[in-house]
Amino acid sequence: MLEKPASPIRFKRLLLTGAAGNLGKELRPRLRAYCDVLRVSHRSDLGAPGAGEEVMTASLEDKDAMLALLDGVDAVVHMGGVSTEQPWEPILAGNIVGAYNLYEAARKNGVKRIIFASSNHVTGFYRQDEVIDTRAPVRPDGFYGLSKAFGENLAQLYFDRWGIETVSLRIGSSFPAPVDRRMLATWMSFDDLERLVVAGLTAPIVGHTVIYGMSDNATTWWDNTHARHIGYRPLDSSDVFREEVEARQQTIDRKDPVALYQGGGFVAKGPFD
Amino acid sequence: MLEKPASPIRFKRLLLTGAAGNLGKELRPRLRAYCDVLRVSHRSDLGAPGAGEEVMTASLEDKDAMLALLDGVDAVVHMGGVSTEQPWEPILAGNIVGAYNLYEAARKNGVKRIIFASSNHVTGFYRQDEVIDTRAPVRPDGFYGLSKAFGENLAQLYFDRWGIETVSLRIGSSFPAPVDRRMLATWMSFDDLERLVVAGLTAPIVGHTVIYGMSDNATTWWDNTHARHIGYRPLDSSDVFREEVEARQQTIDRKDPVALYQGGGFVAKGPFD
Amino acid sequence: MLEKPASPIRFKRLLLTGAAGNLGKELRPRLRAYCDVLRVSHRSDLGAPGAGEEVMTASLEDKDAMLALLDGVDAVVHMGGVSTEQPWEPILAGNIVGAYNLYEAARKNGVKRIIFASSNHVTGFYRQDEVIDTRAPVRPDGFYGLSKAFGENLAQLYFDRWGIETVSLRIGSSFPAPVDRRMLATWMSFDDLERLVVAGLTAPIVGHTVIYGMSDNATTWWDNTHARHIGYRPLDSSDVFREEVEARQQTIDRKDPVALYQGGGFVAKGPFD
Amino acid sequence: MLEKPASPIRFKRLLLTGAAGNLGKELRPRLRAYCDVLRVSHRSDLGAPGAGEEVMTASLEDKDAMLALLDGVDAVVHMGGVSTEQPWEPILAGNIVGAYNLYEAARKNGVKRIIFASSNHVTGFYRQDEVIDTRAPVRPDGFYGLSKAFGENLAQLYFDRWGIETVSLRIGSSFPAPVDRRMLATWMSFDDLERLVVAGLTAPIVGHTVIYGMSDNATTWWDNTHARHIGYRPLDSSDVFREEVEARQQTIDRKDPVALYQGGGFVAKGPFD
Amino acid sequence: MLEKPASPIRFKRLLLTGAAGNLGKELRPRLRAYCDVLRVSHRSDLGAPGAGEEVMTASLEDKDAMLALLDGVDAVVHMGGVSTEQPWEPILAGNIVGAYNLYEAARKNGVKRIIFASSNHVTGFYRQDEVIDTRAPVRPDGFYGLSKAFGENLAQLYFDRWGIETVSLRIGSSFPAPVDRRMLATWMSFDDLERLVVAGLTAPIVGHTVIYGMSDNATTWWDNTHARHIGYRPLDSSDVFREEVEARQQTIDRKDPVALYQGGGFVAKGPFD
Amino acid sequence: MLEKPASPIRFKRLLLTGAAGNLGKELRPRLRAYCDVLRVSHRSDLGAPGAGEEVMTASLEDKDAMLALLDGVDAVVHMGGVSTEQPWEPILAGNIVGAYNLYEAARKNGVKRIIFASSNHVTGFYRQDEVIDTRAPVRPDGFYGLSKAFGENLAQLYFDRWGIETVSLRIGSSFPAPVDRRMLATWMSFDDLERLVVAGLTAPIVGHTVIYGMSDNATTWWDNTHARHIGYRPLDSSDVFREEVEARQQTIDRKDPVALYQGGGFVAKGPFD
Repeated sequence: MLEKPASPIRFKRLLLTGAAGNLGKELRPRLRAYCDVLRVSHRSDLGAPGAGEEVMTASLEDKDAMLALLDGVDAVVHMGGVSTEQPWEPILAGNIVGAYNLYEAARKNGVKRIIFASSNHVTGFYRQDEVIDTRAPVRPDGFYGLSKAFGENLAQLYFDRWGIETVSLRIGSSFPAPVDRRMLATWMSFDDLERLVVAGLTAPIVGHTVIYGMSDNATTWWDNTHARHIGYRPLDSSDVFREEVEARQQTIDRKDPVALYQGGGFVAKGPFD
Repeated sequence: MLEKPASPIRFKRLLLTGAAGNLGKELRPRLRAYCDVLRVSHRSDLGAPGAGEEVMTASLEDKDAMLALLDGVDAVVHMGGVSTEQPWEPILAGNIVGAYNLYEAARKNGVKRIIFASSNHVTGFYRQDEVIDTRAPVRPDGFYGLSKAFGENLAQLYFDRWGIETVSLRIGSSFPAPVDRRMLATWMSFDDLERLVVAGLTAPIVGHTVIYGMSDNATTWWDNTHARHIGYRPLDSSDVFREEVEARQQTIDRKDPVALYQGGGFVAKGPFD
Repeated sequence: MLEKPASPIRFKRLLLTGAAGNLGKELRPRLRAYCDVLRVSHRSDLGAPGAGEEVMTASLEDKDAMLALLDGVDAVVHMGGVSTEQPWEPILAGNIVGAYNLYEAARKNGVKRIIFASSNHVTGFYRQDEVIDTRAPVRPDGFYGLSKAFGENLAQLYFDRWGIETVSLRIGSSFPAPVDRRMLATWMSFDDLERLVVAGLTAPIVGHTVIYGMSDNATTWWDNTHARHIGYRPLDSSDVFREEVEARQQTIDRKDPVALYQGGGFVAKGPFD
Repeated sequence: MLEKPASPIRFKRLLLTGAAGNLGKELRPRLRAYCDVLRVSHRSDLGAPGAGEEVMTASLEDKDAMLALLDGVDAVVHMGGVSTEQPWEPILAGNIVGAYNLYEAARKNGVKRIIFASSNHVTGFYRQDEVIDTRAPVRPDGFYGLSKAFGENLAQLYFDRWGIETVSLRIGSSFPAPVDRRMLATWMSFDDLERLVVAGLTAPIVGHTVIYGMSDNATTWWDNTHARHIGYRPLDSSDVFREEVEARQQTIDRKDPVALYQGGGFVAKGPFD
Repeated sequence: MLEKPASPIRFKRLLLTGAAGNLGKELRPRLRAYCDVLRVSHRSDLGAPGAGEEVMTASLEDKDAMLALLDGVDAVVHMGGVSTEQPWEPILAGNIVGAYNLYEAARKNGVKRIIFASSNHVTGFYRQDEVIDTRAPVRPDGFYGLSKAFGENLAQLYFDRWGIETVSLRIGSSFPAPVDRRMLATWMSFDDLERLVVAGLTAPIVGHTVIYGMSDNATTWWDNTHARHIGYRPLDSSDVFREEVEARQQTIDRKDPVALYQGGGFVAKGPFD
Repeated sequence: MLEKPASPIRFKRLLLTGAAGNLGKELRPRLRAYCDVLRVSHRSDLGAPGAGEEVMTASLEDKDAMLALLDGVDAVVHMGGVSTEQPWEPILAGNIVGAYNLYEAARKNGVKRIIFASSNHVTGFYRQDEVIDTRAPVRPDGFYGLSKAFGENLAQLYFDRWGIETVSLRIGSSFPAPVDRRMLATWMSFDDLERLVVAGLTAPIVGHTVIYGMSDNATTWWDNTHARHIGYRPLDSSDVFREEVEARQQTIDRKDPVALYQGGGFVAKGPFD
């Protein structure tokens, strides 16, 4: 949690979906600083609400539950859905049908801003010796990345047609620390994640903006030039972990797709091959 | 039908899906020239096969039926699925689940080339005074366009991961003749459609290539420079219809989204608003 | 004059300014085919109107005269103003103050489409071994080119702010025939000029579009890709004059700015140096 | 004023025009550090010269006065002219005729470097969710922006034709502090303004270079990549004001052109509508 | 040979190197139409001169011989050197040392225009499903392509430093007819070769221009947009051979580098692996 | 030497060529920290090896010596060859034949990573008011730059064909301190040189990557965006020398090619003119 909130702008009611997921758990206590009421939801029971919280249970596949979930909400931080490579069916349910249900609920409830947890796996089939920007054609590295690309396009449609604004965060690797050399490029600290989410929530005009979620790492494959209007300024860096990570992982097998492509492990293994 | 086939290259067995649809009906007799056996399919019964044909009934949502449908096939011309703006559910079924089933069936059956009927509605929210190329970020104009963008990304994934090649045809307006001034830009004759499909089937190396499907029209919004390796050379043009079309439709309401955006009528009306 | 009009679309009243200028004289009889009434104007008296014509005298510097001139007009073909390199004062009067007066008159009279005779001299300081498109930063070759760049920017402003559409024609060299080797690149036949003006008048949506005015010449320095929505298809070519022109002008002095820069003679000599 | 001059390079005589204007008043005491003599001018009387100063009164519209003003000058910092949206006539006089007079005076007096106070309003009709670079086609948001675009093109001409170098500063918002959320993107401190002007004056080779004038703000719409040779490194940032500004202006009306376009207030209101 | 010369421009003395090579033999009788004297050279004896010819023997590695060879010459058509993949040593001698000797001889003799037979193998490691333009970074497919890239850079240097102009022709496959499906993309007829060489010789200003040498083929991987100022308009096309070629070569092995890369056979086999 | 090594990754045996050259001497003691054995070589005798060193004498022109030199080596830092503008012959020997011998030796010995000391003189004929990225077409400023462009293309070939990875460092000016105003843009400290070499050695996947070698200077002409995957983060800057350098060199002669072009002194003088 940042010592001081990243912005004094307060929402009456923010919704955080996927509140029991890895990043949801990180964001839940942090987002309270930015709203009067933080509504948190998950597909499973979240227990009793904390101070300033509302708790709801809602499955993304359940259209009516989603409609109720977004009622009275100013903005959504959508961390829900499947967040790893999985077989097609759960990804279809959570990330395709679920994303549609979310945006329909936003449209019907008049919600005007969504922070969408997209993923670097939308472009995971670019090589690790390529630097791409946010307009490069997508190259998903699996069904998960494919479903996130769908979500981004859905967000674009809902902006072009109904004026609902989205910031699609192509999150790299948000963990306590980078665990391998790939993550020296993709890592984003939890504090920077908070900064990025808040920047997306508070930037005055965003239309549909795509931005890669990463800290200020020396090594990077991604260029956020087209998203500078978001005002995201990372203050952490994977560089402080470099020595330790490189000491642990001295060698790279350059013929392994895991080493070659930006998607890393998502490229190589899947439950579906 | 072209007087002479566009290529002497022959496939043992070609599959045409959506054979009872508007473009399917046009392509069905034409494709017989390029294969020993033309397998045609539709969700509803197609009646008795013609000479050199095999007829199968298969719904795109039916995984097993799709698996059987692609068995023994060299290449697929995928015209099946929903081809107009519709509510979400039928589009989900036919164009998202259906596309997945088709590609899985291709992967399991070792089919290596697919011609995918995508649509100009993938980029329908660009303005009619903009010229875009095939790498411009997508801006679908509705659920139909959104589902076609999904299909293109799916095709990219199946190429990057499993080497299945696809030519995604962003078909403009393939009708006997252009019926309004928008179609002076988007029109593609049936003969040019045949040329384009055959070019896609016979080009030696295509990876995943996106190409707009249009005749050699004086007015156009689309630049196919990145797809020149397909070898598509249109020989028809909307220009011969210009006088008649313009005479019929003298005025344009420039404030109407239908006139402003490339997607035309798809932008303005939908069953879902 | 084309044997057959380039379009059946007819305007009630078209205004042609600069009707006694070089290109105005060419266009005057041609434009009658596209309107019920052709209003023609010049700073000096044009004599009696022809059939289907209205004649007005108006100086571009005269705000009130311009306001009256555009009253009741559907669209304007603005060929008026200074069309050669001149000292600053006449260019200021005719092409800067005059352009402002024209657009103000259009705004006040509700005129919604202007064809603006801009010039290749807006980019005359690019070299003859460079190919530029319509988005390249301007490099005017003199006060004339500078004033035309002003006119284009004015057109952009009146579109962005008040929705008045303009097609800015960066005319190359519109003469009966190319007279030197530079014109093999820049030449536009009078018939192609008519085609271009009519395309600009009748294209459904143009916003503010810049397009170079040239025939289908083998040699060219300009790329109109971004203006394909205008639907201009030149049918003439400088190629038929190539032999004669090259025979006449066998040698080029490559150190002469006139030979080096696209602006040709405009680069080298001026009344102001 | 910087504690220490930004460069030890000294000019014999620098000219600062518009010395009584908002930015002129800021720059006047600062520029003394960079020259033996600072000539300051304004259209109205500036009173007695300070130490190391020469004072002249000169109206930009007055050709002869401008010729005298630039006599014996090494370089010009041109802050004069109209600096707000105004009706056409004063803008024409000060910023179009005036800019011409300035450059003609430079040419006749052999002055070889000009720092031209252009403006972000040259591109004010881009949206606040777009990031543009210095080569994007101009989209002025009013007559003021239009006149600054003219000045930039004039500068390009005088470089291409006569070798007079200019750095055109597209100044964002140079005030003591940002007063609204738009200025979090556009703000430039007075110290950074000094750094930018001095960088422009002392960079060895500039040709005609366009650069946006802003501090090191987290939020920005502008990319100065093409101007890195100027060597401008901002040391201030609007970020330190963010909390206060956002607390004061919690909400944005996203349908208001003032919020939507980069030009902000200049887009919405004008004395001329 | 063209029925009529492609241009009436005549040189006093043209030099054709490599006159006994495959393309040299084609060009030798054709070039006589464009000069008073055609000097032809080869490393081996060319026999007696024809009418209007001078014959010289000169090895590219022989500095003095090259100096003599270019004496009194207006322009050079440089077809000499190694033109197939070879071990390093002969390529070094003919195409690197030889190219240097040629340009030094041009500089010392005041020759101001060279047509340099470069090759598509300069970019042979791009894939056959990619379309590149003449500014794409080079990716040579072997020592031959590498040496041609050297020649192009040498040409650039001699233009930037000494004003010697070159048109570098990245020749595809210039044969009587395309012999396989790759050549449907790369083929250039001998007549088009003549048109291209003459366009390069006679274009007024070329600096150093790179252009791909191909006929007007439906299938292509190369975009000559940046070279339109050369005025090359191909009039032949591989399309007339398509049926025959495709009938002969029905299948492609998409895993074979020969099929995958633009360089074709040059990619796969070499005397050096 | 950095206080602490830039990376804990250690090689068994690193080769440093040109160890007695200017940069070789700087790198020799620094590289010992990154390997068990540092093999150093030069064309002349290097004397007795230091601790952890192997010393070899090898001329780049000597194929067999190079083959022996790379035997048993993990990676090469190639600082050898000619590093100033020279007549053609020594450059041919050291930088063209020598580079070929080095890469052949790498291929035969199975060496998989090379750091190649290229040079900013590969693009020295761009102007000092232009900012270029690493994909801009090369414009060498002399034979030295030409030979470095050859080396880069050779590296590309050996990656595309044989999978040998290279980072080509286009080194600016690596000296103890910048000595003139040009070097304020081009300077790279020795510490940053070490950081850059180590980044190139340890980045997991590099293919063939080009990167400009410079410190974090305020003034720059080069954009390394496409090389961010290398993870090079300069920590020094020419800015600390700016005052002193500018005080010493107050004036620039803008008509001197040395001042105008990025190559500086290499553009103007040569042993060969």
